[in-house]
Amino acid sequence: MSSMKQIVQCVPNFSEGRDLKKIEKIVEPFRGREGVKLLDYQNDEDHNRAVVTVVGAPGPLNTAVVEAMGIAIDVIDMRGHQGQHPRMGAIDVVPFIPVKNVTPQEAVDISKDVANQVAAKYNLPVFLYEKSASKPERQNLAAIRKGQFEGMADKIRQAEWKPDFGPAEIHPSAGVTAIGARMPLVAYNVNLDTADFDIADRIAKQVRHLSGGLRYCKGIGIELKDRGIVQVSMNMTDYTKTALYRVFELIRIEARRYGVNVIGSEIIGLVPMEALIDTAAYYLGLEEFSLEQVLEYRIYE
Amino acid sequence: MSSMKQIVQCVPNFSEGRDLKKIEKIVEPFRGREGVKLLDYQNDEDHNRAVVTVVGAPGPLNTAVVEAMGIAIDVIDMRGHQGQHPRMGAIDVVPFIPVKNVTPQEAVDISKDVANQVAAKYNLPVFLYEKSASKPERQNLAAIRKGQFEGMADKIRQAEWKPDFGPAEIHPSAGVTAIGARMPLVAYNVNLDTADFDIADRIAKQVRHLSGGLRYCKGIGIELKDRGIVQVSMNMTDYTKTALYRVFELIRIEARRYGVNVIGSEIIGLVPMEALIDTAAYYLGLEEFSLEQVLEYRIYE
Repeated sequence: MSSMKQIVQCVPNFSEGRDLKKIEKIVEPFRGREGVKLLDYQNDEDHNRAVVTVVGAPGPLNTAVVEAMGIAIDVIDMRGHQGQHPRMGAIDVVPFIPVKNVTPQEAVDISKDVANQVAAKYNLPVFLYEKSASKPERQNLAAIRKGQFEGMADKIRQAEWKPDFGPAEIHPSAGVTAIGARMPLVAYNVNLDTADFDIADRIAKQVRHLSGGLRYCKGIGIELKDRGIVQVSMNMTDYTKTALYRVFELIRIEARRYGVNVIGSEIIGLVPMEALIDTAAYYLGLEEFSLEQVLEYRIYE
Repeated sequence: MSSMKQIVQCVPNFSEGRDLKKIEKIVEPFRGREGVKLLDYQNDEDHNRAVVTVVGAPGPLNTAVVEAMGIAIDVIDMRGHQGQHPRMGAIDVVPFIPVKNVTPQEAVDISKDVANQVAAKYNLPVFLYEKSASKPERQNLAAIRKGQFEGMADKIRQAEWKPDFGPAEIHPSAGVTAIGARMPLVAYNVNLDTADFDIADRIAKQVRHLSGGLRYCKGIGIELKDRGIVQVSMNMTDYTKTALYRVFELIRIEARRYGVNVIGSEIIGLVPMEALIDTAAYYLGLEEFSLEQVLEYRIYE
């Protein structure tokens, strides 16, 4: 990876969460290949779904993702698929995420290249979503996926749901796939020293984009019953524009209204280094600080 | 670098800051070699000194440092050396700093291996310093270097200044060298909204170890005349034990006594990622956060 000037992350979701042999076959193209690194893959039996995290250089990553999708089409048959998670294809969704020296537009270009390749090779209909979407109503994955695999045969024949690549009919066994570029998502939760769910619920509504809050923040209130507290549980969908510390401080400010305190926060899963360094720079009031000053950033340049 | 499980940094200081051809020869062993990466080198003509920053895996790094020291002994003659910076040898000081998956003790072991090799190969007297020191009075580099190159011929014959490796007489042209392990040093300055030097001076004395402050903090007050403000200018000598945010908050607290505010801070040069992530984790009150959750950390594992 040391020679990679550019790094993109890809998190393909496959509709197979029970047969580990099939999952091993699907991730095989991500192993032992120059310019590609498999970071993680997890299957969920109830969801009947596997989520793979892979990083790589543009080019080698595209090739590996196209191969893995081909294997998934071979080994997964959606006609008998059952699982709790909504899904519309053997490869349900393939997001590309800029990580290092990659612009959002370059991630969009990669997503379109992969969409073009898999549509041609496997006769697979593909919808572009998020930053790659061809129309505003296709930005939201849930809108594309509505009706799921079972409803997609009819939906895709409607003019407004003509796929961006591939035929206007579903792949008989593999359905359809959404491919697109998005920013890294940070799962971020802030804990409050109250057991009153209504307070977390109201604060979530105050800080999230949907109901008047910060542009790149989705959130709900939840109860942590075992701890006797509540939490504002969020997905930060673009930390470069809606900083972690900003929503943290905003929640603290809102909590005052209820005489409640923020007692801590938590990051679930992975977070880009830059999101935390930006937070440190804010609180220390760092002047003229650059990521180039981070030792690890220089080492892996 | 991707295959390096362990990374050590070395920042050798050479007593040549004017002849760029000589400096190029000295850094040559750090170029194009598996397991070693030259990050930076800078020469200072007034100091007549070059500071090199290199990282690498234990083993390959040791070998490269030994080679570079051999070249420095060949091309630098201290008998004609003049420069503002105190110095006692052609290679004045060679610190080894743990960066990734390396314990302080392993860095000490590396420093002793290199000291042993260069003493044997080049007949060079070596003093171990900092964490590698054989006696408390040799921890401080300034104490070892006192008398400089010119005074070292006599000093080294005293029983208490017998070198840890090599002969008890100076190398005729290369003098003596200090080698040791130390923690990463972070140059960290905090700016105050006053032009009163005395306030920066007093606060520096309150927060630094020397006069009763934090264990791994060295500091002085300085004036930033062009900005009309003063600064507490510090070297944080072990950020894993004396956190950046702790000295920042302490300075804020001390400044209150004078009715003065902290207006920002700055990091000069390189800083390990962990120092800033620890700061972010403190201010966000992050629960159960691990470095393993940092995307870049995983990518370069």
